[in-house]
Amino acid sequence: MSKLLVIGTVAFDAIETPFGKTDKILGGAGTYIGLSASNFKNVDTGLVSVVGEDFPQEYFDVLHSKGINTEGIEVVKGEKTFFWSGKYHTNMNKRDTLITELNVLEHFNPVVPEKYKDAEIVMLGNLHPLVQNAGLEQMTVKPKMVVLDTMDFWMNIALEDLKMLLKKVNVITINDEEAQQLSGEYSLVKAAKAIHAMGPEYVVIKKGEHGALLFHREKMFFAPALPLADVFDPTGAGDTFAGGFTGYLAEQKELTYENIKNAVIWGSNLASFTVEEFGVKRIAEVTNKEVKERLDKFKELTNYSL
Amino acid sequence: MSKLLVIGTVAFDAIETPFGKTDKILGGAGTYIGLSASNFKNVDTGLVSVVGEDFPQEYFDVLHSKGINTEGIEVVKGEKTFFWSGKYHTNMNKRDTLITELNVLEHFNPVVPEKYKDAEIVMLGNLHPLVQNAGLEQMTVKPKMVVLDTMDFWMNIALEDLKMLLKKVNVITINDEEAQQLSGEYSLVKAAKAIHAMGPEYVVIKKGEHGALLFHREKMFFAPALPLADVFDPTGAGDTFAGGFTGYLAEQKELTYENIKNAVIWGSNLASFTVEEFGVKRIAEVTNKEVKERLDKFKELTNYSL
Repeated sequence: MSKLLVIGTVAFDAIETPFGKTDKILGGAGTYIGLSASNFKNVDTGLVSVVGEDFPQEYFDVLHSKGINTEGIEVVKGEKTFFWSGKYHTNMNKRDTLITELNVLEHFNPVVPEKYKDAEIVMLGNLHPLVQNAGLEQMTVKPKMVVLDTMDFWMNIALEDLKMLLKKVNVITINDEEAQQLSGEYSLVKAAKAIHAMGPEYVVIKKGEHGALLFHREKMFFAPALPLADVFDPTGAGDTFAGGFTGYLAEQKELTYENIKNAVIWGSNLASFTVEEFGVKRIAEVTNKEVKERLDKFKELTNYSL
Repeated sequence: MSKLLVIGTVAFDAIETPFGKTDKILGGAGTYIGLSASNFKNVDTGLVSVVGEDFPQEYFDVLHSKGINTEGIEVVKGEKTFFWSGKYHTNMNKRDTLITELNVLEHFNPVVPEKYKDAEIVMLGNLHPLVQNAGLEQMTVKPKMVVLDTMDFWMNIALEDLKMLLKKVNVITINDEEAQQLSGEYSLVKAAKAIHAMGPEYVVIKKGEHGALLFHREKMFFAPALPLADVFDPTGAGDTFAGGFTGYLAEQKELTYENIKNAVIWGSNLASFTVEEFGVKRIAEVTNKEVKERLDKFKELTNYSL
């Protein structure tokens, strides 16, 4: 059984979309990544995060029910869990952040449990680059692969820290606008080349409903997003992608380019569930049968014989 | 040798992009469609259009050099060729029309040469639906396939004519916003379903740099656009797509779903050349070898083995 170490937020989210709104529900990058990766049965996923005293047992139960090890989630007494609230507009591609209460996240110091210090795959969810680095530094065995997710916010306030960390990662997942910002290049082909030069040998550019591009030196691979009749809530789609990507790779003996392409397809496949309901509801409840059926739909969507 | 009848504009374009600007150069939907289709050697393409006395012999020579039959291009004495001028902004996805001088197009009455009245494939380029219909009505043998391209402008001023025509076509090619406008549905899956119900059994939704979706009843297929280091001028990309789509199909014995999927890939492949230079320059000069090499790049971009 391979080990996947996930370092990422566990949070409360309140979400508004054209289709409805939620009170505080379970959210956070680490949550989505873990739940998504839990679809791979031969992977032992350990989640490193921090929550407040207000984080309910029932949310721990959700994670445990999917086999996620939460030993690395620190519960800070007398403090509150990270809270994010956002609102999506009609086209669902843009969102406004309404509230960000960092709470426990402000002083998050990740502690990797002994058991996961030799994890084969490390997934660094979106956090301050120094926090991501502090987690990575605790590994006692060099991971086979380190995957980093980040966002424009860290490019704005901690670019040098991010660049230092990029030298240590194998894969970066980033959206198209962030790739343009990080590289200063408008063309994604040129952006990927510039980001390669910063360290990661694999650059995954997420384009939301327009799919995801994988760049590896001179090679390119593309996975579409599955066109859906209804997109209900895009929150967590990128993190679900990252969980599918790393979960699939944790199950593979070798990290060949072919396997990394397949990991992109798996990430896209699992992300297509997350957007069908508010929050983690759909990805936490999806069955093996549904996942397999949708993978067949993906093949139908992309396969041709020229 | 199969026949492809193309009805579409032959025009002068003046284009401005972030990379430069042109004087009046050869343009028009029919021109791009014809040049693109000319990459298929076993297809006899007849172009039906109208130009003014100012249309130079050298532009006819461009079309003839690619084997396009221009017998159906009427030259109106004492009048001027249709002229369009547009400007693209940084992201190249949006353009402003600066000038539209209809000139000869104002009274265009397409006359299909006898030789093409039994063409197997008919491609109706973007024109008033009644003009498209007037061309289609001249067929003496029912075509194996009629493909229609249109735009929002005709939905605004001639929706009922367009709806009448849609009942007679097998395939519609349309961009994402136009599909939304025509159907009143935001989701492309729902939009395609609504457009199916209007007539076309195949709905091709073009998403520019984000690729193209093919819908056929319950089936979906997706072809990405090839990510390019430099996109120089997007003018004519959609028409080049249509020319590759119909040219490929004209060469096929049977119009199976598998072949129509391949036609979408061929359309995307050829369109990737057009955007690399101003106007028709690149698509008029592309070699067989380049086309084949790029098709291999497409396969590399899309093939995986899960």
